[in-house]
Amino acid sequence: MTQPEDGIWCWEDFVPGSVRTAGPMRVDRDEVLEFGRRFDPQPFHVDEAAARESPFGGLIASGWHTCAMTMRMMCDAFLLQSTSVGSPGLEKIEWLLPVRPGDDLHLRHEVLESRPMASRPRLGLVLSRWEVFNQRDECVMRMVGWGMFRRRRSENPSASA
Amino acid sequence: MTQPEDGIWCWEDFVPGSVRTAGPMRVDRDEVLEFGRRFDPQPFHVDEAAARESPFGGLIASGWHTCAMTMRMMCDAFLLQSTSVGSPGLEKIEWLLPVRPGDDLHLRHEVLESRPMASRPRLGLVLSRWEVFNQRDECVMRMVGWGMFRRRRSENPSASA
Repeated sequence: MTQPEDGIWCWEDFVPGSVRTAGPMRVDRDEVLEFGRRFDPQPFHVDEAAARESPFGGLIASGWHTCAMTMRMMCDAFLLQSTSVGSPGLEKIEWLLPVRPGDDLHLRHEVLESRPMASRPRLGLVLSRWEVFNQRDECVMRMVGWGMFRRRRSENPSASA
Repeated sequence: MTQPEDGIWCWEDFVPGSVRTAGPMRVDRDEVLEFGRRFDPQPFHVDEAAARESPFGGLIASGWHTCAMTMRMMCDAFLLQSTSVGSPGLEKIEWLLPVRPGDDLHLRHEVLESRPMASRPRLGLVLSRWEVFNQRDECVMRMVGWGMFRRRRSENPSASA
């Protein structure tokens, strides 16, 4: 994707069919343990020995940690240079394969749908699919969800309220 | 909910219609900032001044932080005393209202559906609705998603493979 002229991704730039990539991000063992201890202390996220005996055969990242790492990849790739004002929610998350310490994750982000927000004329909604792959190009997580972005003012002069 | 006789919640105990509650959990300002800086450094999660100028009018927790805090409430209330073996995914997340430092969150967890896993006879799937409320009993987040649990062995003697 070419950066927009003014350097900021606005709602108008998230054209259906457009694809953005992000990453890679290395999954750090200590961070897997730290996130697990703080938020999701199930044995397979916080205890190497118990994880080996679990169906996963070893330590895996909390699914929420994978979501959070994905968010960070997206922030660094384009979201912090955008008019994002958050998200009303997601339509789906699929945790497809275990994410393990040492994995290198990368993200493919595709815009599925885009529409102005009737109730807030300065904003628009974007529906996207996030697919996160590991270093073997296996898809480990897939999400579909909404983002809200401000519209470009110059194209929307009546919506200054 | 009464604790099961053996002290461990198995798949059979997640009966459709059954309700579990969890929390409260205080939303800590420093943790909001720390989570934001690490995973979701959008201005309204990491910068008090910028957050005041944002549509949210002040610092708010990343939606992923709310998910993670919800997970921790659920772990402490019953998941760590269960046969949970993770989740294949969620059907929906709705971030309904901002979550702010100082909020006290609590969780209502209701089982919607339950079924054995055809491909893995020792496991069963549970579909649940999570509703997270703040101290004013406003629903700030709603999720619907799946959990996988081991079945109780005594009721399932043929499934030892």
